Amino acid sequence: MTHTNDSDSRSTDTNHPTDADGGVDVGTDREPLFARIPRRDFMKAGMAAGAVGSLAGCTSILSGGDDESVALEDVKTDVKPGELDDYYAFLGAGQSGEIYVYGVPSMRQLSRIPVFQANAANGYGYDDRSREMLEDAGGYTWGDAHHPRISQTDNDYDGRWAFVNDKANGRMARVDLKYFETDAIVDIPNQQGTHGACCVLPDTKYVIGVGEFRVPMPNDGRDLDDPDAYTSTLAAIDPESMNVEWEVLVDGNMDNGDGGKEGRWFFATEYNGEEGVTESEMSESDTDWVKAFDIPAIEEAVENGDYEEIGGVPVVDGTRESSLNEGDRPVVRYIEVSKSPHGVSVTPDGKYAIASGKLDPTCSIIDVEALGEVDDPNEAIVGRPSLGNGPLHTAYDGRGHAYTTLFIDSQVVKWDIEAAVEAEEGSEDPVVEKIDVHYNPGHVIAAESYTADPSGDWLISLNKLSKDRFLNVGPMKPENDQLIYIGDDEAGMQLVKDTPSYAEPHDASIVKADKIEPATAYDPDDYDEEFVESGDSDIVREDGRVHVKMTAQRNEFGFQDVTVTEGDEVTFTVTNIEETDDISHSLAIPEYDIHIKLAPLETREVTFTADKPGVYWMYCAFFCSALHMEMRSRLLVEPAD
Amino acid sequence: MTHTNDSDSRSTDTNHPTDADGGVDVGTDREPLFARIPRRDFMKAGMAAGAVGSLAGCTSILSGGDDESVALEDVKTDVKPGELDDYYAFLGAGQSGEIYVYGVPSMRQLSRIPVFQANAANGYGYDDRSREMLEDAGGYTWGDAHHPRISQTDNDYDGRWAFVNDKANGRMARVDLKYFETDAIVDIPNQQGTHGACCVLPDTKYVIGVGEFRVPMPNDGRDLDDPDAYTSTLAAIDPESMNVEWEVLVDGNMDNGDGGKEGRWFFATEYNGEEGVTESEMSESDTDWVKAFDIPAIEEAVENGDYEEIGGVPVVDGTRESSLNEGDRPVVRYIEVSKSPHGVSVTPDGKYAIASGKLDPTCSIIDVEALGEVDDPNEAIVGRPSLGNGPLHTAYDGRGHAYTTLFIDSQVVKWDIEAAVEAEEGSEDPVVEKIDVHYNPGHVIAAESYTADPSGDWLISLNKLSKDRFLNVGPMKPENDQLIYIGDDEAGMQLVKDTPSYAEPHDASIVKADKIEPATAYDPDDYDEEFVESGDSDIVREDGRVHVKMTAQRNEFGFQDVTVTEGDEVTFTVTNIEETDDISHSLAIPEYDIHIKLAPLETREVTFTADKPGVYWMYCAFFCSALHMEMRSRLLVEPAD
Repeated sequence: MTHTNDSDSRSTDTNHPTDADGGVDVGTDREPLFARIPRRDFMKAGMAAGAVGSLAGCTSILSGGDDESVALEDVKTDVKPGELDDYYAFLGAGQSGEIYVYGVPSMRQLSRIPVFQANAANGYGYDDRSREMLEDAGGYTWGDAHHPRISQTDNDYDGRWAFVNDKANGRMARVDLKYFETDAIVDIPNQQGTHGACCVLPDTKYVIGVGEFRVPMPNDGRDLDDPDAYTSTLAAIDPESMNVEWEVLVDGNMDNGDGGKEGRWFFATEYNGEEGVTESEMSESDTDWVKAFDIPAIEEAVENGDYEEIGGVPVVDGTRESSLNEGDRPVVRYIEVSKSPHGVSVTPDGKYAIASGKLDPTCSIIDVEALGEVDDPNEAIVGRPSLGNGPLHTAYDGRGHAYTTLFIDSQVVKWDIEAAVEAEEGSEDPVVEKIDVHYNPGHVIAAESYTADPSGDWLISLNKLSKDRFLNVGPMKPENDQLIYIGDDEAGMQLVKDTPSYAEPHDASIVKADKIEPATAYDPDDYDEEFVESGDSDIVREDGRVHVKMTAQRNEFGFQDVTVTEGDEVTFTVTNIEETDDISHSLAIPEYDIHIKLAPLETREVTFTADKPGVYWMYCAFFCSALHMEMRSRLLVEPAD
Repeated sequence: MTHTNDSDSRSTDTNHPTDADGGVDVGTDREPLFARIPRRDFMKAGMAAGAVGSLAGCTSILSGGDDESVALEDVKTDVKPGELDDYYAFLGAGQSGEIYVYGVPSMRQLSRIPVFQANAANGYGYDDRSREMLEDAGGYTWGDAHHPRISQTDNDYDGRWAFVNDKANGRMARVDLKYFETDAIVDIPNQQGTHGACCVLPDTKYVIGVGEFRVPMPNDGRDLDDPDAYTSTLAAIDPESMNVEWEVLVDGNMDNGDGGKEGRWFFATEYNGEEGVTESEMSESDTDWVKAFDIPAIEEAVENGDYEEIGGVPVVDGTRESSLNEGDRPVVRYIEVSKSPHGVSVTPDGKYAIASGKLDPTCSIIDVEALGEVDDPNEAIVGRPSLGNGPLHTAYDGRGHAYTTLFIDSQVVKWDIEAAVEAEEGSEDPVVEKIDVHYNPGHVIAAESYTADPSGDWLISLNKLSKDRFLNVGPMKPENDQLIYIGDDEAGMQLVKDTPSYAEPHDASIVKADKIEPATAYDPDDYDEEFVESGDSDIVREDGRVHVKMTAQRNEFGFQDVTVTEGDEVTFTVTNIEETDDISHSLAIPEYDIHIKLAPLETREVTFTADKPGVYWMYCAFFCSALHMEMRSRLLVEPAD
């Protein structure tokens, strides 16, 4: 851990490995970009100042949070047995296809929410409802879940939903935070490699899927080896219906995104402005673009019928050429930024969108309000501090600081946003301090950083490598999610915990505990399955179909045996009739590959063909009472002959 | 947390909820059992003493560990960033079908090892080898993994393998601790509900699967509703070949098991001596049995051809009747114990097997050596202390104490083993202290408790309910694995950590860190797939089959594009040619539902039919370098027409 309060040593810490793992060459010659984009002084003095106070509810320019910093020793860091955490953290678990739920600051994994991969532990993908949902969303058995974002109202978490993308299959999922379970997945037409996933703020009007991989549209075998004909799109999804409302077709590709606080602009980075199809082609030029999508302009285009319907979705032309032709109000503005940017995030006050260079040591600061007022969108860039090697993502503390991960330097750099706007381009002066992380960080997230009012106390650095930080568990190491205290500006950043995690958390949202109010039992009105009342267990037989309706409770199922005939199509509708907190049951059927989970007052159904004669002991897999072992009933499958 | 050093208040703590969750009635009237089984004083004075010193390498009667206790403040409990844990804990994750790997004492989850359920994160069930292994083991998509046991040599962990059962589908799996990955699964014939999973010691001669559910044999539709014809078996599996060597057919059912240290006896509890098929029938009688399997006698029977071959396995008759007929050397001895016992475990010195009553407040202490010398196996019972309500499982500290979970009382009770042998039956005097746990504990595990030399410092109580102990995450709560310090006999048990865990850890093994030596890269000699050398990427086409052999390294695959024709059967053989620690790659193919993981020097293959024309961006899902986003190649599938 390295940090300093000495302003003379603010710049860069020398104790960091550069490209320790044989990584890439990083361009450091920024002259071409800086020479090409004239710095407009009015942007600093005029437009930036003009934005002051433009956002309702902000008491200071940069901070919606508490300006006072607090020493670490005055903060709860050790969550003792029986104590509760202060925050939920929702992590997009990458190739695990899940959302992990951590408590902060304990960094304990409180739950895992299966999203794109079936999980027997809670019956996800096993009962009829969740199985059909996965089938309807393409039938894929896995997904690559990167960016979990929590729904907001008035730029604050409302605790309703989490959304997360599937990069592998171009999908977006919704998690119901009443039950902490996935309740909708949409397979986004015309999009491969949905990467960024974010909300259009302040009120989550849309959930945005950012298309990374350029492919022919439609991708049906046409234009196979004609990359010029490939396209990528931005997709806007209605959070209630999960319907794809419209898409915007763009030049180049896209990567991460973030929504402005005011509802007009949505920002997406692009690392392959070259539209190359090989690594070297993709990283050839010194600059790429941030695309700023003008949401009302797009909506207007859709309303006016200025779109082509492709894959059942209105697709608005947002290419550079078309935008230029639209005169006053292009639907997409292309802003030239440092080479191959990766992350982009909007400051809590909504003033700036900050894009990280990735293959360039600078970040580009875009003045959000100015964007609607300048002719050349490049004039909206009001700062470009030099931060270190491999800047990827940026989080905020609400006290005017930005925290950017440096992938190659294995550090998090804290810097002063307004100082960066004031400073010369390429200056290292705005850097406040750097802290080593272990190793190679991707996303960094601060508590409530995506709202208008970050908490300013905790930061999590999602490091891609852990190497020697934990006991060796074989060739596949855990990632390392490090908890850093950022609440004390005087003492500087302080590393508090190393947390191993299973591959691979990409991004997270950290939410104050009291903003989420999960249920402890299901409300039967929330689902379609028939609630089986106590004593109402029943078996209905008709034409080779057997419908078993039964209860589950300590310590028995509604039937002690169920007899069916080989070949019958059998449906079990099972209700856990207990509402006692934490008393879950389940129905496991050996050798029939069935496991449905039944939390308090939950009903689930499972349908299967009884194709194997014999005795099968259906049992409850959740250890539920002293007579749990005895909570089992027989499924008797009589031979057809 | 409650504990006391006051010997007057040793008995029971009054501050514990009894049956707080509306659980079962627990029989407390032990007279019938105690009256029926005469206490033989010679067992206490003679046979027990006779066992002293019979086990090589033990320096004291009860302890192979350090007799001195150590204060908690002198022990590492807070594993600081960058520090390593002292132990690995391997937890059988129940309906998650995995083994979780924790560090102790940090209780951080260091890894998850998928066993019975596919997991895209590390390609398990996605590459050809692991997919075929799961297919060959019955093709089930989930399993119920309860009891992970680590292979031993000379009654000590040798770090080679972990074994774990699948209760749902009657299987046993082996995990290779060089790579921390599942490398074999056997579908055990004639067995449904394989529950207990343990090693025959001292050298892991067999891995034992304990059959819980009684079913017809073979279970093909015969004897459907004739429970008298149902059977259950004990299965012995060769740990090298994972072949089922023999089974023993028994009366009643079985539950948990444990191997004696001397290699002769294997113990299994039975909770349904009644052979009932309903909950009330199963818990009707006041006693049940522990079955003691005489391994050499069984091997002799197999060698002599005294078996019936069923399902391809020699099945030895171990029913009570047959055993009685075999005179001097019955293969199974039936020992009458308190009602519906659940756990059984052998003391570190090998002297005693202790079975918990579950529906009776007592544990039964069986003298292992005496078992071979008495005519009536019931005479081998040398103690029966009264511990509290719902005793389930017992662990050891090597200093003469046993730690038994009390499910209904939500406590762990520490008691003195020799004092219990000396005391009257049903006495509470051997109880040293009790500690509240939260809530309703199942298994309890002490560090190295299953070896001859427990560490005596850490204990984990695997609690089934957490209720209010963590932030609410909806109706399905985490379990709570509590870490308790047991290293200080004077201060008593001390609760150190609450650890939330995903459903549902059942049992665990805790192993000293230096006893396991995982590799950091794969050894190509350990697998059959062809290692693709750098520069040797190649595409072989023949008769509608395309075999792509390619490398993966930062930041590219061996081919930047691969063209195939719709309908081709395509195999990718991919080698990660990097040996740098922790640099994993993978091959994800969008919309083809493929993800294979490639740790350093690992080769995996995946075969699929290219049935969808179009452009598919194959990418690496492990964030591996600053050019990770660019590490992608095109799969071009040309339309067949």
